[in-house]
Amino acid sequence: MLSKNTVKFIKTLHQKKYRNLEQKFFVEGEKSVLELLDSDFEVELLLVTASFLEGHQQLIKQLEAEVIIVSQKQLESVGQFQSNDSALAVAKIKVNQYFEYNQNELVIALDDVRDPGNLGTIIRIADWYGIKHLLFSSQTADFYNPKVLQSSMGSFTRVKFFYGNLAEIFNKWDCPVYGAYLGGSNVHQLTKPKPGILLMGNESNGISEELEKFVTDKVTIPGYGSAESLNVAIATAILCDNFRRMSGV
Amino acid sequence: MLSKNTVKFIKTLHQKKYRNLEQKFFVEGEKSVLELLDSDFEVELLLVTASFLEGHQQLIKQLEAEVIIVSQKQLESVGQFQSNDSALAVAKIKVNQYFEYNQNELVIALDDVRDPGNLGTIIRIADWYGIKHLLFSSQTADFYNPKVLQSSMGSFTRVKFFYGNLAEIFNKWDCPVYGAYLGGSNVHQLTKPKPGILLMGNESNGISEELEKFVTDKVTIPGYGSAESLNVAIATAILCDNFRRMSGV
Repeated sequence: MLSKNTVKFIKTLHQKKYRNLEQKFFVEGEKSVLELLDSDFEVELLLVTASFLEGHQQLIKQLEAEVIIVSQKQLESVGQFQSNDSALAVAKIKVNQYFEYNQNELVIALDDVRDPGNLGTIIRIADWYGIKHLLFSSQTADFYNPKVLQSSMGSFTRVKFFYGNLAEIFNKWDCPVYGAYLGGSNVHQLTKPKPGILLMGNESNGISEELEKFVTDKVTIPGYGSAESLNVAIATAILCDNFRRMSGV
Repeated sequence: MLSKNTVKFIKTLHQKKYRNLEQKFFVEGEKSVLELLDSDFEVELLLVTASFLEGHQQLIKQLEAEVIIVSQKQLESVGQFQSNDSALAVAKIKVNQYFEYNQNELVIALDDVRDPGNLGTIIRIADWYGIKHLLFSSQTADFYNPKVLQSSMGSFTRVKFFYGNLAEIFNKWDCPVYGAYLGGSNVHQLTKPKPGILLMGNESNGISEELEKFVTDKVTIPGYGSAESLNVAIATAILCDNFRRMSGV
């Protein structure tokens, strides 16, 4: 049975403050929950409808997590989804772990990307383009925000990320830093770019002056019409696509 | 002075039913309002804060619309923005007008793209890539939905669109139809594609069977990782970018 305390506890996890305090987060909906159960995240609690349980008995049997059968209405009252007839899971936040740069890898770095939908979409794009590592400035949206997880469409389980001081990291890493700017080189004319860091800036202000110093190549998506700019997630996708096609992979 | 009736009237325009009945819509925020005033849309009513009025006196003087000075709080109570210290404008909906296909043009067609954020983002992408014409199936989100207009970032003023039966139009137009599929030809290997229609499907179900018959070229964005799919606006952007770069423009 779903206790009032459990309801209250899950509801606190909507807020970053409590996620940090508890070092826990939740995901909801069939796709995200199944991806979570298939990952190396440590799941502690699983709320399931009877029909979800029936459809995934084998998988759920193997779990060490506490499993509570709930109604669709209960799921919707604790989560953020308007409609959820499957499941919601609570898992442990992973330790914020620094990683070294692997030669030949493309890494995405985000300088204060604040919108959770943008961050989630960028995680999904990274996963599509086989990018394993992401760097986030400390003011970037919280990875464990339910909207980030939702818009990543399960890809949040397949990327590694580190929140930290990007200037310090760029200083240490010996690789090109491609910065997305409005007035840089046409990315369509970049041939065989070396692997490195693709740096994307804040939605309103772009890349900060502090980080601009580390940018070795300013790149731009050529425009053919009158829009002033592109959304940061859209720009990330187009740049990743150009990098992949031009690296001949 | 802002009357209760005007407040009530603008609030009804949040709903498609009343927008259709009144043949009017609203936009809010500095950027969208300025783009609207600079376009061929017929503006009927303009709510402005004193500071917005002061900043744009010349422009507002030339308007034939009714202008009402309001407080930021009033703007926020009639619109959908959490924060709006500039303006909100009510304008006339344009007649849904069919257009013929111009040779050498790339047209975007949407088969039931339902999410207003996706539609608005696609309009912004079209404007970035110089695509002037869009076709929407009748179940596609409403162009005049405030969220569509907002996410188009002003680009809604620079595209022409027609809501109608896509099958009938494809039947008439003599040009390739490029359909976005998960199992089509690698778009990176498409060289010098002929201009035509880029057809994007519904968020969950893709392109309908009825329209699949008209697709001359199934195209796919190559994936390098494990994400199952890309968001429809993201995919539209990547495909437009590939078309533009490969047409040698």
